[in-house]
Amino acid sequence: MIKAALSVLLVLVAMSSTSGKYIPKSGKRIPQTLSRGWGDQLIWAQTYEEALYWSRSRNKPLMVLFHLEDCPHSKELKKTLSEDTAFQRMLDEDFVVLNLMYETTDRHLSPDGQYVPRIIFVDPSMTVRADIGGRYSNRLYAYEPTDVPLLKSNMVKAKKLLKSEL
Amino acid sequence: MIKAALSVLLVLVAMSSTSGKYIPKSGKRIPQTLSRGWGDQLIWAQTYEEALYWSRSRNKPLMVLFHLEDCPHSKELKKTLSEDTAFQRMLDEDFVVLNLMYETTDRHLSPDGQYVPRIIFVDPSMTVRADIGGRYSNRLYAYEPTDVPLLKSNMVKAKKLLKSEL
Repeated sequence: MIKAALSVLLVLVAMSSTSGKYIPKSGKRIPQTLSRGWGDQLIWAQTYEEALYWSRSRNKPLMVLFHLEDCPHSKELKKTLSEDTAFQRMLDEDFVVLNLMYETTDRHLSPDGQYVPRIIFVDPSMTVRADIGGRYSNRLYAYEPTDVPLLKSNMVKAKKLLKSEL
Repeated sequence: MIKAALSVLLVLVAMSSTSGKYIPKSGKRIPQTLSRGWGDQLIWAQTYEEALYWSRSRNKPLMVLFHLEDCPHSKELKKTLSEDTAFQRMLDEDFVVLNLMYETTDRHLSPDGQYVPRIIFVDPSMTVRADIGGRYSNRLYAYEPTDVPLLKSNMVKAKKLLKSEL
């Protein structure tokens, strides 16, 4: 019975830890996460400015992932990538990560247009790596779930940092 | 015993629902929220671009809140505001909300400098309401927990939208 009481207590604590006093008329909401399902264990930058700052100061390449919650292609890719332990570890240890649902004002992040899902690598020197793309010539920065091996080899490419100009 | 088993199951479900397969070497992390503790029930924009788009399309003023997690003044204000039901309801129903820990490139959001905590209102016409400030002449957009009544009256001011120029 003590175990049971403890379990109930734990459930209550788990439920209350993410709630405030205010409850919307439409009912209680699940708090939004910065990961949006692309990897809850990763530390996501909130904005492009923040991501660039982290990338420069940590000397790690930045991966920017554009997606939409209603887009079936984004959803499929999200499912595959969030469950790929090797991919998540690589991102966590060697990259700065940012996922965005709205375009930034920086056109360098859309070298061949604004579409989702789209993955752009940026060097710590703040150079967009337009040379690192996928297999679709009309949407060079798009990836499908079957393209994950190519995406991983592109990550290895992105990790070879561009030399700073001396 | 069935209750106990059910409780344990609920705990396990609660724990696993926010986790992927990947676990960092440093141990499991709590997923980051977009609210960062300023109101888990509110729907926060991720970036300034997104917030401006929502503000225009919904014809609601935008409240931008600059803060830092290590700043004691930010922490105090966060505690007060997150527990103020009337404030949270007003934000949820009448405003678009954005909290930022990194400055944007838009200088209009720092009319008298970059400091935290700092609250800036933006009209749906995309005009920064530099006229809506607090009681500190050297840091016009700073608020302390005791200034919440003034902040609320400023929100009422921000809700009176600027007329579009005809």
